[in-house]
Amino acid sequence: MTQAAFSDLDVAHRMADAARAAILPHFRTSALTAENKLEGGFDPVTVADRAAEQAMRAVLADLRPGDGILGEEFGTKPGTSGRTWVLDPIDGTRGFISGTPTWGVLIALSDENGPFLGVIDQPYTGERFCGGPDVAAMTGPLGARPLQTRATAALEDAILFTTFPEVGTPQDRAAFERVSAQAKLTRYGTDCYAYALVAAGQVDLVIEAGLNAYDIQAPIALIQAAGGMVTDWQGNPAHNGGRALAAANADIHASALKLLRQA
Amino acid sequence: MTQAAFSDLDVAHRMADAARAAILPHFRTSALTAENKLEGGFDPVTVADRAAEQAMRAVLADLRPGDGILGEEFGTKPGTSGRTWVLDPIDGTRGFISGTPTWGVLIALSDENGPFLGVIDQPYTGERFCGGPDVAAMTGPLGARPLQTRATAALEDAILFTTFPEVGTPQDRAAFERVSAQAKLTRYGTDCYAYALVAAGQVDLVIEAGLNAYDIQAPIALIQAAGGMVTDWQGNPAHNGGRALAAANADIHASALKLLRQA
Repeated sequence: MTQAAFSDLDVAHRMADAARAAILPHFRTSALTAENKLEGGFDPVTVADRAAEQAMRAVLADLRPGDGILGEEFGTKPGTSGRTWVLDPIDGTRGFISGTPTWGVLIALSDENGPFLGVIDQPYTGERFCGGPDVAAMTGPLGARPLQTRATAALEDAILFTTFPEVGTPQDRAAFERVSAQAKLTRYGTDCYAYALVAAGQVDLVIEAGLNAYDIQAPIALIQAAGGMVTDWQGNPAHNGGRALAAANADIHASALKLLRQA
Repeated sequence: MTQAAFSDLDVAHRMADAARAAILPHFRTSALTAENKLEGGFDPVTVADRAAEQAMRAVLADLRPGDGILGEEFGTKPGTSGRTWVLDPIDGTRGFISGTPTWGVLIALSDENGPFLGVIDQPYTGERFCGGPDVAAMTGPLGARPLQTRATAALEDAILFTTFPEVGTPQDRAAFERVSAQAKLTRYGTDCYAYALVAAGQVDLVIEAGLNAYDIQAPIALIQAAGGMVTDWQGNPAHNGGRALAAANADIHASALKLLRQA
């Protein structure tokens, strides 16, 4: 087979498969307690994180050698194609060490316009959410399903997520709480899984701060493919990280953005 | 087969199986949006909640007709045996309507001394956590595993969970935050799943307030069977609900209790 026989989505699936295999042996092990630290001082989540990124980079070395890579663990590898794979092997390490199935493997492919293909994979539940030019679909315990964001128009009907109540700086928290005060329901603690739930049409908004590019590029492409939108808190592109507002549709995005922007 | 051919654990498994079948068709449906409310004004989570409790009561009518029942949806049915099944068909309805896999089916069996058999079932992930006189084990995506709580001795090494940052009253919140300030990590948003993670040896503490008996009896029996303990915030039995402190072991329980008790 030639490299071209694999679509970008095929490559992403192979990367996600490789990451799953590298990570799952380290999830919910009793070795996550302090007395079982591995040699060299690394705990199992760090070992899993690194092994997964190496496994994904190996797939790229084989199938997309000309593409660049930006990974959380091993930094930047320049490419020649003008395209970059943006990788977070375990997004949500605090969820991981707590045993919750809300962390995920994040894979994005971007060009000069930003990310256009995104995958969020949850190895333990077996869920994989994919969004790109030709796909907006998930597989999981209930089988394969299309992804489509919700049409919720009013904040008072919206379900809002963030990972922890502090959100970011005190100013970030105050902005978040202006939206939260008007939302129907606010939930915490979901790491990247919340973005997958926006794409899956289950929730309406995710608001976070302090993000890196590799935290948000996969959610951006995924949610856009499913009908939603992701920007920073000024309405500009969010793919370099920082503060992000993910929304199920343009109406609910505009309502939340207005509150986030208030000084 | 006679009724006695089924152990209490067998009966609990049949109840959990019946609840799964009743609930899963209603999880992650687009019918959870407001415009798709079912006839009679009930939303899908209410329909699933009721259907699951009825399905569990049908198992009991068949296999344990002399036992009492206390259920969230259909109240109390007196028994003749001195034993009561305590049921919450969907604990964590806010998690359910958000699509997160942290809600669960709670099944407990109690006598005059409190709950002695407890099951937390997560239908979507396929996880089932069982604790009782002869069992402390789970099944799930990684197969069958024994349940054993952690030995974490110091609060500074502890992972603490609660469902939402408000916890309960402002006084409850202040007490929670005294513990949270000393813990290594505090996480939110997990509903009953956090208790299962204590039993599974992944986290150390769960602190909640405003509970009903059917919210806490299954976690009590499950965590006790796995080596932990659950009391109220005074160190007394928690099986009537109210405020609960679930801990992986007696040492970490004592440390958290001391902080919760401070006026």
